[in-house]
Amino acid sequence: MQFMSDNTAAVHPAVWKAMMDADAPDAPYDNDALSGRLDATFSALFGRECAVLWVASGTAANCLALAAMVPPHGAVVCHREAHIEMDEAGAPGFFLHGAKLLLAQGQSARVTPETLAAVIDPIRDDVHQVQPHAISITQASEYGCVYRPDEVAAIAAFAKARGLGLHMDGARFANAVAHLGCSPAAAAGAVDALSFGFVKNGGMSAEAIVFFDVEAARTIRYRRKRAGHLQSKGRFMAAQILAMLEDDLWLDNARAANAAAAAIAGAVPDRLLHPVEANEIFLTCTAAERDALRGQGFAFYDWGADAARLVTSWDAKGAHVSALVRALEAL
Amino acid sequence: MQFMSDNTAAVHPAVWKAMMDADAPDAPYDNDALSGRLDATFSALFGRECAVLWVASGTAANCLALAAMVPPHGAVVCHREAHIEMDEAGAPGFFLHGAKLLLAQGQSARVTPETLAAVIDPIRDDVHQVQPHAISITQASEYGCVYRPDEVAAIAAFAKARGLGLHMDGARFANAVAHLGCSPAAAAGAVDALSFGFVKNGGMSAEAIVFFDVEAARTIRYRRKRAGHLQSKGRFMAAQILAMLEDDLWLDNARAANAAAAAIAGAVPDRLLHPVEANEIFLTCTAAERDALRGQGFAFYDWGADAARLVTSWDAKGAHVSALVRALEAL
Amino acid sequence: MQFMSDNTAAVHPAVWKAMMDADAPDAPYDNDALSGRLDATFSALFGRECAVLWVASGTAANCLALAAMVPPHGAVVCHREAHIEMDEAGAPGFFLHGAKLLLAQGQSARVTPETLAAVIDPIRDDVHQVQPHAISITQASEYGCVYRPDEVAAIAAFAKARGLGLHMDGARFANAVAHLGCSPAAAAGAVDALSFGFVKNGGMSAEAIVFFDVEAARTIRYRRKRAGHLQSKGRFMAAQILAMLEDDLWLDNARAANAAAAAIAGAVPDRLLHPVEANEIFLTCTAAERDALRGQGFAFYDWGADAARLVTSWDAKGAHVSALVRALEAL
Amino acid sequence: MQFMSDNTAAVHPAVWKAMMDADAPDAPYDNDALSGRLDATFSALFGRECAVLWVASGTAANCLALAAMVPPHGAVVCHREAHIEMDEAGAPGFFLHGAKLLLAQGQSARVTPETLAAVIDPIRDDVHQVQPHAISITQASEYGCVYRPDEVAAIAAFAKARGLGLHMDGARFANAVAHLGCSPAAAAGAVDALSFGFVKNGGMSAEAIVFFDVEAARTIRYRRKRAGHLQSKGRFMAAQILAMLEDDLWLDNARAANAAAAAIAGAVPDRLLHPVEANEIFLTCTAAERDALRGQGFAFYDWGADAARLVTSWDAKGAHVSALVRALEAL
Repeated sequence: MQFMSDNTAAVHPAVWKAMMDADAPDAPYDNDALSGRLDATFSALFGRECAVLWVASGTAANCLALAAMVPPHGAVVCHREAHIEMDEAGAPGFFLHGAKLLLAQGQSARVTPETLAAVIDPIRDDVHQVQPHAISITQASEYGCVYRPDEVAAIAAFAKARGLGLHMDGARFANAVAHLGCSPAAAAGAVDALSFGFVKNGGMSAEAIVFFDVEAARTIRYRRKRAGHLQSKGRFMAAQILAMLEDDLWLDNARAANAAAAAIAGAVPDRLLHPVEANEIFLTCTAAERDALRGQGFAFYDWGADAARLVTSWDAKGAHVSALVRALEAL
Repeated sequence: MQFMSDNTAAVHPAVWKAMMDADAPDAPYDNDALSGRLDATFSALFGRECAVLWVASGTAANCLALAAMVPPHGAVVCHREAHIEMDEAGAPGFFLHGAKLLLAQGQSARVTPETLAAVIDPIRDDVHQVQPHAISITQASEYGCVYRPDEVAAIAAFAKARGLGLHMDGARFANAVAHLGCSPAAAAGAVDALSFGFVKNGGMSAEAIVFFDVEAARTIRYRRKRAGHLQSKGRFMAAQILAMLEDDLWLDNARAANAAAAAIAGAVPDRLLHPVEANEIFLTCTAAERDALRGQGFAFYDWGADAARLVTSWDAKGAHVSALVRALEAL
Repeated sequence: MQFMSDNTAAVHPAVWKAMMDADAPDAPYDNDALSGRLDATFSALFGRECAVLWVASGTAANCLALAAMVPPHGAVVCHREAHIEMDEAGAPGFFLHGAKLLLAQGQSARVTPETLAAVIDPIRDDVHQVQPHAISITQASEYGCVYRPDEVAAIAAFAKARGLGLHMDGARFANAVAHLGCSPAAAAGAVDALSFGFVKNGGMSAEAIVFFDVEAARTIRYRRKRAGHLQSKGRFMAAQILAMLEDDLWLDNARAANAAAAAIAGAVPDRLLHPVEANEIFLTCTAAERDALRGQGFAFYDWGADAARLVTSWDAKGAHVSALVRALEAL
Repeated sequence: MQFMSDNTAAVHPAVWKAMMDADAPDAPYDNDALSGRLDATFSALFGRECAVLWVASGTAANCLALAAMVPPHGAVVCHREAHIEMDEAGAPGFFLHGAKLLLAQGQSARVTPETLAAVIDPIRDDVHQVQPHAISITQASEYGCVYRPDEVAAIAAFAKARGLGLHMDGARFANAVAHLGCSPAAAAGAVDALSFGFVKNGGMSAEAIVFFDVEAARTIRYRRKRAGHLQSKGRFMAAQILAMLEDDLWLDNARAANAAAAAIAGAVPDRLLHPVEANEIFLTCTAAERDALRGQGFAFYDWGADAARLVTSWDAKGAHVSALVRALEAL
């Protein structure tokens, strides 16, 4: 019974079907008809013009998005537990040619204008110190917590006032939108670029970089190719994304994963380390308890010495979730 | 009737099946069972130990392979029409942190020890000039021509004598092996790393970097992740590659593509700009002739003002090939 | 009366004389006779073989030294207030091609094996996290505090046990040696490379990178040229360094600066934020007090809202120091 | 008798004097009074507004100038024998983060709109090929030949029409101006940035980057620091440059060097490989003849198997020049 990662989940049948439908000759790279539909599809979804590039990983999506905002001698401000800081092997340093990450505090891996200012304000505006050029926030956060639209708006206003770009790592953007019950436009707010994740949510290998700064996308097309991320049979990438957006499949999948997480969280309200707003549950759990759970067939990650991380997927099986709920209640 | 690129070809049914079979929960990234089988599978194929990483493009494969051999202040020697020089958007400069490509001559985009020496010998061994650290050759070459085993051996001996690494860009390695009728080990010779292509030959999105220097692969695993090329559902990447190797599917596919190319070449022996040894045909062809061919439904690239490039695929349709042969003979 | 920075101090007459003596034709770059003497001179000074390169700034010295130890995908562990982190404009990210700095705690900007371990131990040894490859310590530290030989030895043992390189930023190495009263070899301990500063101590524009890993220097000679730091009239760089080493001028100058700092510190023992062990004094000082001091002609930096930083130089004038002592006592 | 390189020449007494005059406390880095005078001084010299940064080498000057024009995924077009291609150890790849040099032909190492177009026109405007962003020309060229103002104007018009930046490597700009007998503004034409060399012409260690695009200089100040090229006692750098510009010392020195070269060239008109327009003479010369010259005490570089390169300096001694003239005539 898998609660390790939403990366282990299956590919949704609709995605499979779309990929197989795409298996007819078409132009290579992103010159195919499906890739050509992305800009309009996302523009309609967000209600404003955007330019969209597919890539094969969230790491590539985040770093190419940031490459549009940050020169090699600049910096990105992000939470100190952000994925780009903790789990991407230094990819921002690679894609941004040595630019720095400046690390902000904030509850449940969410920053605020105040915690951002605490990092930025002490920086002297001289050539000896690395100057910030962008902010990156994660929706939902590394701890499965969601920025409300007014919180995103406050950060966007802060970014604008400081002349900084704003990027949103949306590896679990669908889960955030499902939680908020608002439009994707409201959940993204006035960001300049969004890494819109699909792989954790029923896709196979395609993430979208959504540039609301359309001009920026032109440059990043060169950067994507240069990073080896312009796949030659790109039609299979676009097919996945379009299938996920069709009939709100992305939202349905996220709702299913969120519901499973909520059910699990409901069983252990006193153990929760963070509010459960998406599809991740962080809970206090001794080593003995973890052993007990694993002994019953549940797979998940330790989170330090006295806690565990459980992640639910779009294809979470009701019986597995119920079994886990019972097992947790029995601890 | 598609003769534009082997990138436009379909995905082989066996590859589809393997991918669907892989759609069960397994560990993320390359910790799954299928990815775990790659090293042994390729070691058996080549008859010597190797370590294998999947990536999503030939550009990434070439550049990560070279990153194992060339420091940022060094250089790679390659043919002046090599893919890494002409068609990868400067990716070597990105992955190798500014290392240079030094450009050698050679017929049909193949280098020789003599043409390599003509580039390397004039370089003073001092700090003012960029020093070569590796050679990269393409099997089959950009013009669809194949290095014979003795030619690879001569280049490998040259590389060893000069203390240089040797990389082979095998985007069409299968076509070369099919042409040579030798073992893959013989076609690769004593290279240190091979970019073994599958996407042009029936795969969807997975290429293999085969490191015969097994230790080098350890470092490149970090580099792959850092470049955003460690996909989270890597089992679908490994599945493609394993399916292609099963029962010599890779060779069967390449033979089919080569046979189609040979049939076309046979129709226009006097027009050929290069020997047709793989699945590419470069032929003299006026603008009027190209218009005539396109008028009959054939799609292909111009190659300068007076020539055309046609590429055949593993799924080349006999009727299309026959039609093209007739159309060419009628010119 | 200047207490802003030792960078504002004069060039020592012996350095001037050596530079003028060097104004005869000699081979360009570092092929001149003076540059040729550096390795032997430093090897004698440290009692073990070393290879020495001059560069024009401490930033270049630190980053080129680290470039010998840390691959682009790796990291350096240093104190969170280290110069390479705070004051070099992201130069490590440039010279190391995106490698990270991992930030350790420690009193008075000095790390310990414990604070280093607190950074390193949580890092999972997998490809998702950036792995440390070197430690960089500063002798004397950013707060003018000195590592004792046993402290350096403990850090070197820690580095060795972890397989990490060890670099020492010795922008004020002379002040540290003067304070310790030990040999330079004892003050440097088992570091792999030392940035040996001269500019703050009576030189004009030449710092030395001392590689105790002699082989590493070979590669860094290419890197130095590639960074534009191989000056064509290098004889004037070597001349400065040799003059500073002659008759222990570097130690005499440092002793003079340290003595001036000690005199000032003695006037305000209760205000000191850090022990005064080199030529820097950090003291609590209100805005009104700072105004009062400046009104009397003393130039220095604020250090946050309630403190000041004063730096003494090799050419500190006794009258200025005495005046400052009196002014501080009168606060 | 030195004819190896103008790098071996002495520092002019006026430069020494200015440096010693600068040996009073002043603000560090480039916050001193002398550095503060550079912009106005060069603006007056060129008759248009410019922003000026000192650096310690021509390599740093060229690469920082180009960094203002060329993104990491772009390219610079230059002559195939340009210094940035042949003699800077790949520094453009380092400073420009992997951007490429595209190599043009042209007599005596000078490009023309035609030879530039021959490189640029075949580049497809798609993401697979590296796109040019700037042109770099060398005044005087690597072979000591000078672009006339109308030739620079034609290249500048070409650059503007193609949307490319234009950089001039003026390591020997003074020699070019001296040859042309025109204003420096006319010799530089409508370039965006000029590397104005002083070290080969009587300076010690200071070159100027002259940005006519003043805004670009703001960014490059960060890049200079990040490259370790912001020296802390920058007043000695500014002092050199100001001394060279005072009373046209730079022109007087260049005239002296050019005159010496002209005298030598006059002795061997039939041997000259390139017109002698600056301070370099390239002449046919057998190995036996070179031995004979060296036997008489003349130092110079071989230039391939059958030629020699001789360089004259601002301090060329009349007796040495006369002796060389006689020796050449006697060959």
